[in-house]
Amino acid sequence: MANGTMAALRKSRPAPGLELDTMSAVPGIGPRDVLVAVRYAGICGTDHHIFDWDEWSANRVPLGIVVGHEFTGTVAAVGEGVSQVTVGQRVSGEGHIGCGVCELCRTGRAHICERIDIIGIDRDGCFAEYVAMPDHNLWVLDERIPDLAAAIMDPLGNAMHAVSAAQVSGRNVLVTGSGVIGLASVAIAQSLGAARVIATDVDPHRLELARHFGADDVVLSSDPGWVAEVRGITAGEGPDVLIEMSGHPDALSGGFAALRNGGTAALLGLPKSAVPLDLSNDIIFKGATVLGINGRIVYDTWYAVERFLLSGQLDLDALVTDVLPLEKFEKAFALIASRTALKVIFEIGAR
Amino acid sequence: MANGTMAALRKSRPAPGLELDTMSAVPGIGPRDVLVAVRYAGICGTDHHIFDWDEWSANRVPLGIVVGHEFTGTVAAVGEGVSQVTVGQRVSGEGHIGCGVCELCRTGRAHICERIDIIGIDRDGCFAEYVAMPDHNLWVLDERIPDLAAAIMDPLGNAMHAVSAAQVSGRNVLVTGSGVIGLASVAIAQSLGAARVIATDVDPHRLELARHFGADDVVLSSDPGWVAEVRGITAGEGPDVLIEMSGHPDALSGGFAALRNGGTAALLGLPKSAVPLDLSNDIIFKGATVLGINGRIVYDTWYAVERFLLSGQLDLDALVTDVLPLEKFEKAFALIASRTALKVIFEIGAR
Amino acid sequence: MANGTMAALRKSRPAPGLELDTMSAVPGIGPRDVLVAVRYAGICGTDHHIFDWDEWSANRVPLGIVVGHEFTGTVAAVGEGVSQVTVGQRVSGEGHIGCGVCELCRTGRAHICERIDIIGIDRDGCFAEYVAMPDHNLWVLDERIPDLAAAIMDPLGNAMHAVSAAQVSGRNVLVTGSGVIGLASVAIAQSLGAARVIATDVDPHRLELARHFGADDVVLSSDPGWVAEVRGITAGEGPDVLIEMSGHPDALSGGFAALRNGGTAALLGLPKSAVPLDLSNDIIFKGATVLGINGRIVYDTWYAVERFLLSGQLDLDALVTDVLPLEKFEKAFALIASRTALKVIFEIGAR
Amino acid sequence: MANGTMAALRKSRPAPGLELDTMSAVPGIGPRDVLVAVRYAGICGTDHHIFDWDEWSANRVPLGIVVGHEFTGTVAAVGEGVSQVTVGQRVSGEGHIGCGVCELCRTGRAHICERIDIIGIDRDGCFAEYVAMPDHNLWVLDERIPDLAAAIMDPLGNAMHAVSAAQVSGRNVLVTGSGVIGLASVAIAQSLGAARVIATDVDPHRLELARHFGADDVVLSSDPGWVAEVRGITAGEGPDVLIEMSGHPDALSGGFAALRNGGTAALLGLPKSAVPLDLSNDIIFKGATVLGINGRIVYDTWYAVERFLLSGQLDLDALVTDVLPLEKFEKAFALIASRTALKVIFEIGAR
Repeated sequence: MANGTMAALRKSRPAPGLELDTMSAVPGIGPRDVLVAVRYAGICGTDHHIFDWDEWSANRVPLGIVVGHEFTGTVAAVGEGVSQVTVGQRVSGEGHIGCGVCELCRTGRAHICERIDIIGIDRDGCFAEYVAMPDHNLWVLDERIPDLAAAIMDPLGNAMHAVSAAQVSGRNVLVTGSGVIGLASVAIAQSLGAARVIATDVDPHRLELARHFGADDVVLSSDPGWVAEVRGITAGEGPDVLIEMSGHPDALSGGFAALRNGGTAALLGLPKSAVPLDLSNDIIFKGATVLGINGRIVYDTWYAVERFLLSGQLDLDALVTDVLPLEKFEKAFALIASRTALKVIFEIGAR
Repeated sequence: MANGTMAALRKSRPAPGLELDTMSAVPGIGPRDVLVAVRYAGICGTDHHIFDWDEWSANRVPLGIVVGHEFTGTVAAVGEGVSQVTVGQRVSGEGHIGCGVCELCRTGRAHICERIDIIGIDRDGCFAEYVAMPDHNLWVLDERIPDLAAAIMDPLGNAMHAVSAAQVSGRNVLVTGSGVIGLASVAIAQSLGAARVIATDVDPHRLELARHFGADDVVLSSDPGWVAEVRGITAGEGPDVLIEMSGHPDALSGGFAALRNGGTAALLGLPKSAVPLDLSNDIIFKGATVLGINGRIVYDTWYAVERFLLSGQLDLDALVTDVLPLEKFEKAFALIASRTALKVIFEIGAR
Repeated sequence: MANGTMAALRKSRPAPGLELDTMSAVPGIGPRDVLVAVRYAGICGTDHHIFDWDEWSANRVPLGIVVGHEFTGTVAAVGEGVSQVTVGQRVSGEGHIGCGVCELCRTGRAHICERIDIIGIDRDGCFAEYVAMPDHNLWVLDERIPDLAAAIMDPLGNAMHAVSAAQVSGRNVLVTGSGVIGLASVAIAQSLGAARVIATDVDPHRLELARHFGADDVVLSSDPGWVAEVRGITAGEGPDVLIEMSGHPDALSGGFAALRNGGTAALLGLPKSAVPLDLSNDIIFKGATVLGINGRIVYDTWYAVERFLLSGQLDLDALVTDVLPLEKFEKAFALIASRTALKVIFEIGAR
Repeated sequence: MANGTMAALRKSRPAPGLELDTMSAVPGIGPRDVLVAVRYAGICGTDHHIFDWDEWSANRVPLGIVVGHEFTGTVAAVGEGVSQVTVGQRVSGEGHIGCGVCELCRTGRAHICERIDIIGIDRDGCFAEYVAMPDHNLWVLDERIPDLAAAIMDPLGNAMHAVSAAQVSGRNVLVTGSGVIGLASVAIAQSLGAARVIATDVDPHRLELARHFGADDVVLSSDPGWVAEVRGITAGEGPDVLIEMSGHPDALSGGFAALRNGGTAALLGLPKSAVPLDLSNDIIFKGATVLGINGRIVYDTWYAVERFLLSGQLDLDALVTDVLPLEKFEKAFALIASRTALKVIFEIGAR
């Protein structure tokens, strides 16, 4: 904040890429807002879509925006109406900002508010020295949570939301897609008492990682017989629960085909277009329950993630593969595109 | 049962149509089975598919089978191991016969047993003077339930299963498809405490019926603006619950588009082929819950239907439009095909 | 607010009674608070306990406090950090003010926050020309809700919370205690789809009222055979649900004895001292579920009450028996003590 | 079965003690019944009450009855209507025999049937060379389940029922009472994903065992400050879940006092008489949920116990401390009375 200027990674042009700018001022705050000095910020698949400027981004994201929504940092300033968060506290934040007045917001479901504002997508985000948010959206960190974990409570929360909603305790669980959120889901499912966790991916290396994160069985989903293999692992019955993290049509159709009658599917991976589903056989005759999972329940999911992190059941070092300064953003996005990295994090400020 | 022979409506040839045969014997019963003298039997859409010999029927139904699965009658004989049902009792029956030994059967979910046997589809059904079933599948009737209601507890149970599972109490409910089961769903949703029930159909006459059965609002779903109309009725928010009874792709896509964020969709209508769904927008971002509904929960659903019938909240006369003898089966199926009839029932034996 | 003074009904002395004072100033407000000009305020049983200065009051309530927690009024002023409530809006309010930072407050359960502050009990309440509250605790009223209903959304919410939690849809319901909240519970249970509602009271007049509010059956609980009578009404099985609104040991023991095996009891009435319960027979062998009900879920319950009021299913005129000016507070409390009145409301300001 | 006679441990006289008799015949079986040659049978606290002939036993148990309800054995004969169980199969059995025709029996809640018949209490039990039961009540064993585990699936099922119902996944759990079922509850809570399990007992040796079975923390409940100690372990908030296995009034009142606001208590331990409960503070203001737990859900609980046993998460050797022949029944009951033994099992027949 030398002279009040601020480094920020922005989407400035309607084309692939991002720009590292020096903005002339830090974000202003209203009476209920908080200014956070960002220390670490995680890169999400969504950020990569914005980098690539795909169709979804072009339709949704306003040019000029500061990107990024996963972060940790320190409270630098608070509005005059803020009393429950204080300068100097170490925080993470819920990037989905509900309107606050609709029924969904006022009944514990702000994550699906129809007028949701998301930092880094609809308003300035956290790939910058400072980010401003309503105090309600800040999560004060337990001192035992390491900074790198604090930076990714958002995607860990996606995994926790899906796994918790699907009620895995005592049940056999299939996780399709072993990326960052899929791997976290494997570890979370084990911690929440799953009987057996099966993970899939098209990449054998990711399957090794899935084992490392706690999968009892792994199945290569590029193998045409993968659905039968999953059913074989579950004594021919199929898993009780499907946690779908890939958004890929094959994972969806295969996952539903594998699912046991009466089973539950939690869907978080986003398909790029409409997916043809055999509703009769895969959902209706099967008596299945399908749960759409979006964001995190505020703050049920955050408390659950905190308990999970404090339990020590996540190998954070294995999940966060790269930490880079903001200047190396081109390399950071290249690492994600290569699929050799898992979670890549920007180091932005000092603690 | 003159001379032990029996009239029965069978699927004898791999072509459209059915045949009214005189079979040489009534069905035999094992030690745990019951023989029922059929009094009334309802015609279901499934029976019509078998009549038409569509692709599904040709792949599933064995030739020579006696068709029909909705009925009421009187116990004519019981196996030597049967003690809880006695000769002369008036009964209806659950036509889905589970294997009895799998986990689903033994945990209250026999309706989704993977080895289910359905009367009139997989084994001889009830369009006959007699039908045989395991005693476990019989429902002894309360004396206050009229015969014509007893004959259709199966489809009323489909409606009850869907509406109950979706938890409509205090919520705004959209029923797409105002056929027999859709109309019953409207009445059941009201009896279970829905705040407001909206019904759709492509047929204006069916919408009048929907009002008669208790819909607060009706919407013609052949109108291109029907989804906006539904949202308008619910103050722009969309219904909390979708009860999908048509199986039509437009009703599915429109129903999901109308559904409120965080809402619940219970799907019972069977699409004829794979349906392309915008999973990202209609289920995942929306945080929706989708319930596949198949058959009836044995016997939770039956008790609920009994309570509903005893409450007097169903206009049975309006639902059962035609009662015909088995001999007039061609006319009966023509009535259903014409869509002018609602429920058509065969009168087979005397009480 | 002539000269900034304010009339207020306060508990000034550690003895029975209240005092109508002229306070030298209206309540001050912080940046997130709202000042409400009170129009109507309802008298609750709790207020009567404070009037009487019973043991509970003497241990909990600070002397000098302005009493009262049920109200409606108009926003007179807002703090500088308040943007979602504006001057002139008609409001009611949630009197339970959570700490805002504990896990319960941040996961939709502020009503059971361990550091709850209740207006009229722990801090100044609404039997005054003005009351101040955090904006988060205000409920902006739909214009179709009448003032007298708006004044009692708090106790209607108690009833709604209990009845909703017990899941009455399609079930037989016993409401023990036909006071204001019990009578509202009867009407709410019917609107939420109860199969049959049975109400009890020791006062035959209250039973007439219970019928008026929708009870299918009423039972005089001073009759020693009342439990058998309740079971008889439910064909010997007992009600599926008990809504306990009296706090009386006989209602509790009788209600549990009547309850069907596997049934649910929602307890809201507060016993004055420890109650001996036959846990083995009444809860454990019975496989019962018991729900402690406190306050209202913020704001799930409020939305449900709003829907209920807009449905027109409550006879408000029958529930609110008396409307008096603040000056007649002695008469108001005498009316409640006499049990001839139901809800008594103070008219304080003009609209 | 030499000459068709059978050794059996019976309650023959209205006084303390049991008698080992030679009965003149093995039990007869009806068309749906199965005769099991008993191999092992576990002794339950209930058997000890019958041995002692306490007030409950004297009021409930008919003289002459064969005692015992936990067992494993081999199918020796089946009735002519039995097809799903065959001679030679290794089985355990659900000793609670529902009437089969009531709503509870027909909706998956036979364990709380009002006309329940329990082997060893209401009809002849399994402390004998043979026991007869309806085929519906037999559980065919997976070959990987050892005999001694198979003999105690009933009490393990009590623990599983309580822990499952209370939904411990991700939550802090307090188990009061570290007897056989309490210790099993500790192990089951860990396997179902509890965040932290705290066990109490008045006996320090039992606390050591609780640690061995997986408790994270143990608290001596004879210490007057034990409730505060439990709250301290949970950062002052109290456990989310109470699993009450002792039936002791101090454990009940202390457990409820410790329980977090909004928490869930599953009660299985049977108090000997009415327990005074501070309903206002411990249940109502707390917003607690209380679940009465009786028997096992047939067969949801049995499948869950099977999964748990196959997971290898129970130290069976530590739980079963003594295996004795039927002739040493006096010693067996003395071992239980001494509280030095945990589970004591009779070895009756050969495999």
